Amino acid sequence: MKELSVESGTIVPGGGLETDFLYIQLCEKIKGLIGNFTLKPGDKLPSIRSFSKEQGISISTVYKAYSELEVMGLIEARTKSGYYVKPKPRRLYPMAKALKELTDMGAISADEMPTEVYKNLAEENIIQLSLSAPAIGLLPKTKLNKTMAEMLRRSNDGGIGYDGIQGNELLRKEIARHSFNWGGCLTADDIVTTQGCVEALVFCLIAVTNPGDTVAIETPGFFRIVNVLKNLRLKIIKIPTDPETGPDLNYLRTVLPNIKACLFTPSFNNPLGSCMPDTHKKQLVDMLADHDIPLIEDDVFGECYFGKVRPRTCKSYDKKGLVLLCSSVSKTLAPGYRVGWCLPGKFIKEVIQIKITHSLASPGPTHATVGLFFKTGRLDLHLRKLRRSLSLQCLQYSQAITKYFPKDTQISKPNGGCFLWIRLNEAVDSNELFRKAMENKICIAPGSMLAADTCFINYIRLGIGNPFTRTIEDGLETLARLIKEMIAGKK
Amino acid sequence: MKELSVESGTIVPGGGLETDFLYIQLCEKIKGLIGNFTLKPGDKLPSIRSFSKEQGISISTVYKAYSELEVMGLIEARTKSGYYVKPKPRRLYPMAKALKELTDMGAISADEMPTEVYKNLAEENIIQLSLSAPAIGLLPKTKLNKTMAEMLRRSNDGGIGYDGIQGNELLRKEIARHSFNWGGCLTADDIVTTQGCVEALVFCLIAVTNPGDTVAIETPGFFRIVNVLKNLRLKIIKIPTDPETGPDLNYLRTVLPNIKACLFTPSFNNPLGSCMPDTHKKQLVDMLADHDIPLIEDDVFGECYFGKVRPRTCKSYDKKGLVLLCSSVSKTLAPGYRVGWCLPGKFIKEVIQIKITHSLASPGPTHATVGLFFKTGRLDLHLRKLRRSLSLQCLQYSQAITKYFPKDTQISKPNGGCFLWIRLNEAVDSNELFRKAMENKICIAPGSMLAADTCFINYIRLGIGNPFTRTIEDGLETLARLIKEMIAGKK
Repeated sequence: MKELSVESGTIVPGGGLETDFLYIQLCEKIKGLIGNFTLKPGDKLPSIRSFSKEQGISISTVYKAYSELEVMGLIEARTKSGYYVKPKPRRLYPMAKALKELTDMGAISADEMPTEVYKNLAEENIIQLSLSAPAIGLLPKTKLNKTMAEMLRRSNDGGIGYDGIQGNELLRKEIARHSFNWGGCLTADDIVTTQGCVEALVFCLIAVTNPGDTVAIETPGFFRIVNVLKNLRLKIIKIPTDPETGPDLNYLRTVLPNIKACLFTPSFNNPLGSCMPDTHKKQLVDMLADHDIPLIEDDVFGECYFGKVRPRTCKSYDKKGLVLLCSSVSKTLAPGYRVGWCLPGKFIKEVIQIKITHSLASPGPTHATVGLFFKTGRLDLHLRKLRRSLSLQCLQYSQAITKYFPKDTQISKPNGGCFLWIRLNEAVDSNELFRKAMENKICIAPGSMLAADTCFINYIRLGIGNPFTRTIEDGLETLARLIKEMIAGKK
Repeated sequence: MKELSVESGTIVPGGGLETDFLYIQLCEKIKGLIGNFTLKPGDKLPSIRSFSKEQGISISTVYKAYSELEVMGLIEARTKSGYYVKPKPRRLYPMAKALKELTDMGAISADEMPTEVYKNLAEENIIQLSLSAPAIGLLPKTKLNKTMAEMLRRSNDGGIGYDGIQGNELLRKEIARHSFNWGGCLTADDIVTTQGCVEALVFCLIAVTNPGDTVAIETPGFFRIVNVLKNLRLKIIKIPTDPETGPDLNYLRTVLPNIKACLFTPSFNNPLGSCMPDTHKKQLVDMLADHDIPLIEDDVFGECYFGKVRPRTCKSYDKKGLVLLCSSVSKTLAPGYRVGWCLPGKFIKEVIQIKITHSLASPGPTHATVGLFFKTGRLDLHLRKLRRSLSLQCLQYSQAITKYFPKDTQISKPNGGCFLWIRLNEAVDSNELFRKAMENKICIAPGSMLAADTCFINYIRLGIGNPFTRTIEDGLETLARLIKEMIAGKK
């Protein structure tokens, strides 16, 4: 973030001018700086007091100018932090609504793209834009390492022995306590720990389906789940999903007789970033309850919201125990720990039996460390900081894409999560773009991999988990050049 | 272990007696002490030097007596450790050969027994005889905790970030290095890490089968795999398995046209403890190679051998990349860490893709810790100690069962592993015995759960991972009483 320097503007101190004119002049000046990208989204403006002092303008004039800019939607006040530049909404291209006519509605992609995309996961000299997780630098590395050392001192056996079947008790108690934030009312006994969120999803799927059953999923949606369903020999029905309101519930209603379960990401669909409105969440839960169909709720991004309050979960509307909520710390605390859990509602006995079969117990040391970290109250403070960073980065990436990418690019406007979903010119094959980008040491997630549907071939997902640096900006500029070359080549 | 005290025998020091008579007298005395259980299997005898000094007998007389007892099979010399009491082989009842006519050959048990058996996994005031893993006390807890602290200091991020897709590189290098012990010739690139051995088995099964395929497994055999196969919607064919030589290869040959893969535990079948002779291993690999059928080799107990050399693996005979070896540190180092791996041969690309789908990466801190532990050379020393303890405990448990259980009990004679497989009188329902034992705070694994076959209803598996203490002996005595009551009740 860069502070507005005195040199970057040439504010004329109020002399003969009326205060009214002065504040308008100040407004126009700052507008100009935002317009020519001298001030970028996320940049912090000087505090009212210091700006007033530096420029010799009264505090009330600066305040009036800032308020005016806030009303215009150009800047925003953040509690206890000051004023920041907002992106200009008119410069962001709206994302197209979900295509009602999806090609190949039941098709499953079986290509090897995920292996190519993720084979360099731990490599350092690559601009990593394929991940949907925050960068390590945003995570409380030192505090977690200290907590692990503390766990080793406190624990009886350092996690060498088998943990209880349902998982680390302290961790489960803390998850139950935190569930209060999203409307939950749980105890440790309602929770089963797992290896990350995907193992939770797998256990829940096995618990509620039989061979050959059909599961409804969002499209576009979490791409790995398509392969999970394939591996579990389940069929899928794809539900068109809107970039703002999530899955099309009217469409879902028409296929209810054919499905055994739903697996949705109601808060911050990956890759769309859409968050279902509360009314939709309630409607979804009620509709499924009427037909006794379980809903597996992937809530892994639930804590990564950019707004003021945590979105409610579908689970909080669940009266019949039919919602199985799954989550993890992979997007908030430690992706590499693989600590996840599920709240399987009335299917808890089945899920426990499946856990005994597949993993017997969760890894002790990492689960105990997360439990202890939650307990010491370090989580809430960390999450507040993390959300601010992700929200800021999301703006910065959006603005850079708007600046460098071709004019017909469409960008999602997520209210949470760690990624942007980007629609490119139809001439662009995102698999080809992925390969060209890799030659330039830039790793992106191509649309066909994410949505397992050929109609998303000209889409890409860009992770916004890394702080926005010069290197990232250069990477996006290079990506823009590659895209333009591909479009020009196709003409 | 208890030392033979001077009080426990009344050896008359050599006065007027001839040396020859004296050594015979000494022999008879010690035989008597073994016979009346004053000296139990595994008890250490005094050293030749100290015994000679204490009793005023010449060293050569003591040596002659000990040698005589060794020839008689009553005691054994262990390198650099001294002389120990052996179990009397004639008191061990031989295990019946595998039943050729298994009931219900394709049936899968779906009962809830595993949940009941494992729900108290981490509870401390239960005599835990249901597990097939060494007790925590036999594991290098302090050294592992130190290694984890060292890992935290050395590592860039303490394992918070995603590990590479194939898993921790140091760990894979060390696994490759250790594979030399069983005839392997591998590099780190041949290995994929997993969450324990079962996740490795699951990944391999998904890699080599399609929905509805049939997999051959041993019976009795690793019980959790039956549920895994069910969850993966695979069919099974059970291969009768001999307590000494393992799966019946002639029987297997007859079903080859019907199967897509084999999943066996060639070294120390759980629960039988049988180790296939090398000739059988080679024959199995060759037979399957002729039909291009993959063999998933569960080698999780491979390092828990009681003999002088590590059993070879089927993988070491594999020329076509058709053997997928799976293992973990759960039986040797840290059950609670859930660190496993597989060597998927020519299916490595498929396994990596499946890992990306199901877990993306392995938990960083535990995997890095095990890699570091292997590297520091602490493993070999630890394994030597562990094998001695398990072998001793196996003898001690066997002897106690022989002492307390009814005369018609049959006990397996494993050459490795962490368990005994016990055939009880046909009047005994092991599920009922499990429940009665739990009322007495003793946890056992009933046969029907383990073998998923009603013909094993009167069998139980007893874990020998806990050091043989007075409490354990009391537990076995109580178990024996319950068994006798059940038999009496049925008459």
